[in-house]
Amino acid sequence: MSHLLLALDFGGTKLSAALLQDGESAWRGHRRVFSPSGSRAADDLRAMLQMSRDLLQSHSPAAIGVSFGGPVDFDSGTVRLSHHVPGWEEVPLREQLQQVLGAPAAVDNDANVAALGEQRFGAGKGYRHLLYITVSTGVGGGWILNGQPWRGAEGMAGEIGHTVVDPRGPQCLCGKRGCVERLASGPYMAQDARERLQQEPDKGQILRRLSDGSPDTITGKLLSEAAAAGDALAQEILDRGAWALGTGIGNAANLINPQRVVLGGGVTKSGERWWQRVRDTAATVTLPEVHVEIVPAVLGDDAPLWGAVALAEDLLKHGDS
Amino acid sequence: MSHLLLALDFGGTKLSAALLQDGESAWRGHRRVFSPSGSRAADDLRAMLQMSRDLLQSHSPAAIGVSFGGPVDFDSGTVRLSHHVPGWEEVPLREQLQQVLGAPAAVDNDANVAALGEQRFGAGKGYRHLLYITVSTGVGGGWILNGQPWRGAEGMAGEIGHTVVDPRGPQCLCGKRGCVERLASGPYMAQDARERLQQEPDKGQILRRLSDGSPDTITGKLLSEAAAAGDALAQEILDRGAWALGTGIGNAANLINPQRVVLGGGVTKSGERWWQRVRDTAATVTLPEVHVEIVPAVLGDDAPLWGAVALAEDLLKHGDS
Repeated sequence: MSHLLLALDFGGTKLSAALLQDGESAWRGHRRVFSPSGSRAADDLRAMLQMSRDLLQSHSPAAIGVSFGGPVDFDSGTVRLSHHVPGWEEVPLREQLQQVLGAPAAVDNDANVAALGEQRFGAGKGYRHLLYITVSTGVGGGWILNGQPWRGAEGMAGEIGHTVVDPRGPQCLCGKRGCVERLASGPYMAQDARERLQQEPDKGQILRRLSDGSPDTITGKLLSEAAAAGDALAQEILDRGAWALGTGIGNAANLINPQRVVLGGGVTKSGERWWQRVRDTAATVTLPEVHVEIVPAVLGDDAPLWGAVALAEDLLKHGDS
Repeated sequence: MSHLLLALDFGGTKLSAALLQDGESAWRGHRRVFSPSGSRAADDLRAMLQMSRDLLQSHSPAAIGVSFGGPVDFDSGTVRLSHHVPGWEEVPLREQLQQVLGAPAAVDNDANVAALGEQRFGAGKGYRHLLYITVSTGVGGGWILNGQPWRGAEGMAGEIGHTVVDPRGPQCLCGKRGCVERLASGPYMAQDARERLQQEPDKGQILRRLSDGSPDTITGKLLSEAAAAGDALAQEILDRGAWALGTGIGNAANLINPQRVVLGGGVTKSGERWWQRVRDTAATVTLPEVHVEIVPAVLGDDAPLWGAVALAEDLLKHGDS
């Protein structure tokens, strides 16, 4: 009897598919393509099905797990929308995949699925209660409570990026001031750096040099490099981001008391100083009786695929369809 | 077969016991005594057992639910300590009650038990996911997720009072600045009012009159009365408290996406202006896709006793002991 698990990841810009034999720890096969600019939902779905058939050859999968980069109604398996690709509004993705590929499927948003991946196969292995946070172009989160994703009443749980940690802070696109995402995400930190360079001509010499005098090229990554090279302005902006994230984590820990917080995403590669400040801030905010370990994610870009494997495994275990 | 449920509430200053026939909605009997000042754990336990025997007469209870005003290890039924009464350090309360009263018991902290009470019998009836918050001498909270208390990895979940909403705000006893409790609890608001009256001799005329010129007599309750009578300074302080609570609720809703938030405690009797500001602030902080109803608790001081009934009911249902 086949126990092939098909794992699919509809990212904002990439489509990934992988095949695993249940119980094994290495992919049988793995495909990744970039979603061409201008592509629509139907194009992405077609490309994903093509990759799936390539991987499966003549075999049928026993179950399909799917990570989707946007809000999903888990119970019905319906995608609500994609922030990157048009045409995904109210698409019954689970239903479509089940019909075409002939196996039970489960679909959830990427934050929840990545959280599940890290908990089953990565930095959260052996822990039942954790918060996974990706700190990248945005700041998103997913909870695992009692070993399962906690999705909330409307599937919206985990939005740590839009918790407020500094009501007198800068304004976020969401309308509020001082959200974690406004202070700690890569693009917003880069924007702040560009503004500071313009306002303070004496500061940020290393950052100016690294950006070849073109502030437009500053990214979160370049900011980290400048900070590592000793640029005080870059360090200040990264410190503030780390403080905001640490405060958000401390608040979340006081509210829910998880065992671990797992951090992934590009900004987490900002070096030891950044990590130390996140941890120190969180430790200050949590009550003395509340303990939480903050550790780096280990699955990288494959976290959603591994989480999709966990979704597929659970389908087999529970016999859902 | 007896289905008498014994509900016990070890409050900070009061001891309450009540008896209910399983399935009925009115107490068979109800006792309450004040814990004499200077009493120790053993005294409180003796008084509680005396009340229990009075209520039970010759009958045996089928199960016992207990609310305790301090941290409890739910799994072992051990009280960690009381912030009010000495001698409660590491007391195996569940074990002791089971031996003396001859029935299975469950013990949890008052915030969790009150949350359960409101969810089963009060303002949260029919809702599976809620946050209960008491806004009184402190600000404490308890989660109900999937119809059961969410206690967290160390039994510390629900500490919304010590989430930070204004890092540049006034200092809290916990060491941090701008905790919800520092801004929204009765005693802290009263303290701020006293300081403002001293610093600003022209302000707070109504509040001064209501306190008969003795700032020491100002309490959260008096502050509410002054605000209701139009005192601008009292309104300002209450507004800030409501803003802090609303921000904390909004953050919690973005993180966990519960259906309802139920507010109890003396400060919630501060009038429509206070409620409106709590609700408006929370609505500003929550993402557009996150909806949360904020409603008043309905069980008042009896919330922990009703929650204790729910604990006892669950013992019968699950056959634990």
